[in-house]
Amino acid sequence: MNIAAMNVELLIVGTEVLRGRTAESNEVWLARALDAAGIRVGRITVVGDDRREIAGLLEAAAGRAGAVIVTGGLGPTVDDVTREAAIEAFGGGTDVRPAIVTEIERRFERFGYSMPEGYRSLGKVPAGAESIENRVGAAPGLRISRGECEIFLLPGVPAEMREMFTRVVLPALAPRGRPSGEVLRVFGVGETVVEERLARALGTPLPGGLSIIAGPSGISVYLPAGTEPQSVAGVREALGAELFGTGLDRLEEVVLRMMRERGATLATAESITGGLVASLLVSVPGASETLLEGYVTYSDRSKSRLLGVDAAVIAVHGAVSAEVCRLMAEGARRASGADYALSTTGIAGPGGATADKPVGLCLVGLAGPDGARVRDLRLAGDRETIRIRTACYALDMLRRELAGAGA
Amino acid sequence: MNIAAMNVELLIVGTEVLRGRTAESNEVWLARALDAAGIRVGRITVVGDDRREIAGLLEAAAGRAGAVIVTGGLGPTVDDVTREAAIEAFGGGTDVRPAIVTEIERRFERFGYSMPEGYRSLGKVPAGAESIENRVGAAPGLRISRGECEIFLLPGVPAEMREMFTRVVLPALAPRGRPSGEVLRVFGVGETVVEERLARALGTPLPGGLSIIAGPSGISVYLPAGTEPQSVAGVREALGAELFGTGLDRLEEVVLRMMRERGATLATAESITGGLVASLLVSVPGASETLLEGYVTYSDRSKSRLLGVDAAVIAVHGAVSAEVCRLMAEGARRASGADYALSTTGIAGPGGATADKPVGLCLVGLAGPDGARVRDLRLAGDRETIRIRTACYALDMLRRELAGAGA
Repeated sequence: MNIAAMNVELLIVGTEVLRGRTAESNEVWLARALDAAGIRVGRITVVGDDRREIAGLLEAAAGRAGAVIVTGGLGPTVDDVTREAAIEAFGGGTDVRPAIVTEIERRFERFGYSMPEGYRSLGKVPAGAESIENRVGAAPGLRISRGECEIFLLPGVPAEMREMFTRVVLPALAPRGRPSGEVLRVFGVGETVVEERLARALGTPLPGGLSIIAGPSGISVYLPAGTEPQSVAGVREALGAELFGTGLDRLEEVVLRMMRERGATLATAESITGGLVASLLVSVPGASETLLEGYVTYSDRSKSRLLGVDAAVIAVHGAVSAEVCRLMAEGARRASGADYALSTTGIAGPGGATADKPVGLCLVGLAGPDGARVRDLRLAGDRETIRIRTACYALDMLRRELAGAGA
Repeated sequence: MNIAAMNVELLIVGTEVLRGRTAESNEVWLARALDAAGIRVGRITVVGDDRREIAGLLEAAAGRAGAVIVTGGLGPTVDDVTREAAIEAFGGGTDVRPAIVTEIERRFERFGYSMPEGYRSLGKVPAGAESIENRVGAAPGLRISRGECEIFLLPGVPAEMREMFTRVVLPALAPRGRPSGEVLRVFGVGETVVEERLARALGTPLPGGLSIIAGPSGISVYLPAGTEPQSVAGVREALGAELFGTGLDRLEEVVLRMMRERGATLATAESITGGLVASLLVSVPGASETLLEGYVTYSDRSKSRLLGVDAAVIAVHGAVSAEVCRLMAEGARRASGADYALSTTGIAGPGGATADKPVGLCLVGLAGPDGARVRDLRLAGDRETIRIRTACYALDMLRRELAGAGA
């Protein structure tokens, strides 16, 4: 491999991918895994199940890159043409490997089936290719060396591809990776504010290789590799109370960690988020230590019945009001006996807005040993974005409370 | 445009995309939108912020395709090189458009800012390009005709890109689309069973252009365009009780529609899914008519306290047992006064497994006017996949009950 200019290309094969019909993206998964290992991806190409087109792209990529990772088209059907495309691209002819077919036959037998005839074609591989065992499904992967380039052909089924990548491809490429810079996670301010704070800490123009990526559940600041520890410390200080973690940290993980350290317990009372705050917490293993109970009180009736919110307060102020949001948090804390309770209410759209309560008006409430507080938000986006952002603001309110920073 | 061979290519510009760092994928969104309009995507290329590389790819794509959609690299920073790349690729020189800069200046003024100087560069565009108004952000898009090919340069910010695509690009390309075939949505059987049933209805080999795409919340069967109504009817019959909808239908939408038609109400009692069933329902506008209340009872204590599950039953059978799952559903129905109640419990992993209760053992329960039932599942996948699939099995249990098909 060409170590100095190590550059990986991805070739994603599949007409279904071009149509956006796949449920999971191999491309995004691979891009993230390679980024985390400090391996540079130079180009990604998605192409349909067309043998000649794949062959042309494969040959060109192998001429440019230190490694090419191909996914898809390795199965037994007529649409699976990646193996033949590789034979065509590298022009070295075909090896016949009965052992590959025998292995697949055995696999089918283990599950009590006989192997469909189509699988016999999997025994024909590009000359000199090494077979990569498939521990999840039937079709093996292939590894081919061509000049300075290593080519890995992996299946398109995500679970099979991921297992093979992790076991075989990543260890082969990792020694050529460069260390990545630190990633800082921020919630509660916009991208522009983050940029201003970074400029304060690092000067302008901001260093090359630094990037700020915003999503509904927070902003990730990717510092360039080799950023001096002193500069990292400066950035952390400038980001202030909005800095909540590093790497792939999620707010729910950070909040649960802080709650466990304090031996504190939590309840949730959710209207607009409808169980999303609880579900985010439960997505973290071990959440049962902390989360005593959750109430989904999307209807007015349930707010009164489960949380004891006075129906008269709902009638006067409306369900989307600071008064109701506070009573929801207090009611959930009282009913559950938890140390803290979070509440959410709001208008996610597309309907439900009034003259003084537009879509995106959301409230998050926190009740704790020191009383209850409510924060109101004006959020942009579609229904799902508004709900996710509201859930994250609720979690962040608790995080700040526990950190002693207030909301 | 070359109507006969109308073929669109996507060129996704951005080093951050190659690194998998973006929160949302423009590529998948565009692929789905074009697929839905019956427009064929021939190739997708993702490339970094490199002017010469972009120029080369742009020129090649314009030579092959009837239209090229480019996203990213239109902003005012030094990384934004798509405009210059287009000037280089098409070799017609530069037009200077003061009106573009004036428009951006006005936009900044409306928000009370003065325009950063970098934006002046946005006034230089490839000769003959038409400007596409940006109604969401600052940088306009561009439309360029080159021989038989139309090139659209769109911003990389998803909200800006989507608005421009929907308003300008789709209407320009839609007349060249071909009608798509019907999409059928299936839940409760695997891909292999779906394939067998399709073969029964349509014969083997299955028609070209038919595809079966599995995801955690169901399988989509894409029938080829022009499939005879009689064949569609045959497929529907063969798919049987597992067919739950068409197009982009989600189980939660279908269930809420059925519940509303019957004027029936629902409560949820969730352990393993931790609020996910309720949250899926609340993601559908208007869910408050149906969903009276939801309980997140992830802890043993809350199962007893909120749902009245006998602590002795939990002690004897364990929280992950048919007995507890049934009592959860019955307890939620009783406590809420709803017509139906759904419950979930299970082991999502990675921890929590025992010798006789492995990771992936999940139970869903349904209590209704005719009594309560429980179904046990053995699910594969990671924690999130297991939780999503359990939530979908719970919703599907209610769907079948309402359809009179039983579980």
